[in-house]
Amino acid sequence: MRVTDQQYMKIALQLAQIANGKTNPNPLVGAVIVKEDRIIGQGAHLRAGEPHAEVHAFRMAGDAAEGATLYVTLEPCSHHGRTPPCAELVIRSKVKRVVVAMLDPNPMVAGRGIARIREAGIEVEVGVLEAEARQINERFVHNMVHKRPFVTVKTAMTLDGKIAAHTGDSRWITGAESRAFVHRLRDQVDGIMVGVGTVLADDPELTTRLPEGGGKSPVRIVLDSALRTPESARLLDVQEAQTWIIASQEAEQAKIARLRERGVEVIQVQSGQAGLDLTEVLDELYRRGITDLLVEGGASVNGALLQAGLIDKVISFVAPKLIGGTGAPTPFGGSGFDKMAEAVELIDLTVERYGEDLCLIGYPRRVGV
Amino acid sequence: MRVTDQQYMKIALQLAQIANGKTNPNPLVGAVIVKEDRIIGQGAHLRAGEPHAEVHAFRMAGDAAEGATLYVTLEPCSHHGRTPPCAELVIRSKVKRVVVAMLDPNPMVAGRGIARIREAGIEVEVGVLEAEARQINERFVHNMVHKRPFVTVKTAMTLDGKIAAHTGDSRWITGAESRAFVHRLRDQVDGIMVGVGTVLADDPELTTRLPEGGGKSPVRIVLDSALRTPESARLLDVQEAQTWIIASQEAEQAKIARLRERGVEVIQVQSGQAGLDLTEVLDELYRRGITDLLVEGGASVNGALLQAGLIDKVISFVAPKLIGGTGAPTPFGGSGFDKMAEAVELIDLTVERYGEDLCLIGYPRRVGV
Repeated sequence: MRVTDQQYMKIALQLAQIANGKTNPNPLVGAVIVKEDRIIGQGAHLRAGEPHAEVHAFRMAGDAAEGATLYVTLEPCSHHGRTPPCAELVIRSKVKRVVVAMLDPNPMVAGRGIARIREAGIEVEVGVLEAEARQINERFVHNMVHKRPFVTVKTAMTLDGKIAAHTGDSRWITGAESRAFVHRLRDQVDGIMVGVGTVLADDPELTTRLPEGGGKSPVRIVLDSALRTPESARLLDVQEAQTWIIASQEAEQAKIARLRERGVEVIQVQSGQAGLDLTEVLDELYRRGITDLLVEGGASVNGALLQAGLIDKVISFVAPKLIGGTGAPTPFGGSGFDKMAEAVELIDLTVERYGEDLCLIGYPRRVGV
Repeated sequence: MRVTDQQYMKIALQLAQIANGKTNPNPLVGAVIVKEDRIIGQGAHLRAGEPHAEVHAFRMAGDAAEGATLYVTLEPCSHHGRTPPCAELVIRSKVKRVVVAMLDPNPMVAGRGIARIREAGIEVEVGVLEAEARQINERFVHNMVHKRPFVTVKTAMTLDGKIAAHTGDSRWITGAESRAFVHRLRDQVDGIMVGVGTVLADDPELTTRLPEGGGKSPVRIVLDSALRTPESARLLDVQEAQTWIIASQEAEQAKIARLRERGVEVIQVQSGQAGLDLTEVLDELYRRGITDLLVEGGASVNGALLQAGLIDKVISFVAPKLIGGTGAPTPFGGSGFDKMAEAVELIDLTVERYGEDLCLIGYPRRVGV
């Protein structure tokens, strides 16, 4: 591996991230074409249905691509989708060498694009900055492998572990910078999920309000097995964003009809031992196009997801303040594990500061992985 | 202020910290004597009853001190204590200039040492690296101003705010590096305080076990108004460390007698609205020579201290793991504040890593200060 390979791949990764959260269900992809140590083409995949990164890059390079090196963050596709296969385009371009960060994460097709390019006599190198490439596409990789939404649980607590005072008051735990970051997270996902307890306690809108204005409001999803969401709830106003309510099979039909009349989607799933069957909920959401889900609480939903092993990422804001209170709620409720040794460890932890707050991001370690 | 003043004061501050936790009830002090840009004397106060930093430094410099500059982290003393006043020594040494980081924090004597030195015609500069000097002597400054122990609450919780599983199991929340750091903290304080709940739940020894062996075991103090500490409790073995139990005036005399027979000190104080009057407890501990106190829980004691505004510093370990559980205890219990806006903010927050754990250190913002 040459040193410059990493440098150009880094540029390709940066290009890919321009569209962070905008390409769902597709991955983020960036491409750079280099000849005689000069970038002659570059591109990123910006949105599903629009051209792939390689297409933009080859258009820019034109005939000069002959004999050049292509750096691309993900294996070029080999199948006819909404666009023709990029592997064919690579071959036609007559580049001399292709450097790929990671293979297609779909185990059914991984390696096919590379194989076609190699068969055409083009040198291919795979694995340059692979870890970084997998990280920026963690959502897509998860989708391909598990066929389920990538579930991020976001919590905000005091330094003594409370998500509200014993009275329920929770405005505000974190500062303005942290809250702005949460709106940026919302802007990047397909769905936000809360339990009905949060709707009853806080009556949130759960829409995206970026500091600079605008932003995409994802689908608001409420776990509400018995349809306890009040008719006055703010998120039943579907002007700004869609609202889906997940109820049990036993939910009252008259209530369902009233909600549907207001434009709310009501989805009925089986109940498990402790409320709705969360695996079925996630499967159903994925079928309906939700590739990633930001879970914003509360304690019961978070606790149930934890216990079921369904959390893929945790974003935990910690505000440097103490409120006390034996009865004050904490970010993860439910029954909890019996032993400290059974607690779910978070790995690859990163720590950032947003104003006075800390933001800890980590990934639950999978048992047996 | 000259640039070199800061450099030499920094050395004096480093010297001072050699004796961190060993000089109680005295402050940490370091001194450096400089002539023609060379250090000709240096010293630190190592232990109460032993010479002050200036004495060591002047012994080393000898007659060469004439015309030199003295850097000292704390105003030289002007009173006859266990040693003669350092201000006199400074004057006799014929140094040309004295640079002091901070005045004596005792408002009754602050400025007297400096005044005597200035009267003798020696140039004096005050305030070089003052913030750093106040920080290393935060315990001593607090003692002088408030005439009370400096109270540090140490907590350890999961990233979902739990100090134990719902079953009470708490071994271990943090990793080996964090626990080693806690033993280093114990080695530096006069007393460790817990509530009887922690004794009943964990039966801790609360002794100091430094990784390299040795260490000073501070006085173990149990808040136990009704003397519920079991006779089999490990910390009633007073071979390794002293044990003081703080009980209410109503505690049973027969129990008190049995504890005293075993060498345990029983101290009776008034009860307040919510258990023992914590202000009286701290006053009594200070009268008995406890200048700093490491509070190691549990939730009730921490919550009561928080509510009473008696916490001076918080050291909070956060282990990157999730255990869940609505009934699992959190680091600060009690009744808690009613509104999130009433939460006690921590300022000057620092964040360190110990192994996988985070360690957050901050200071409660005093209302009205």
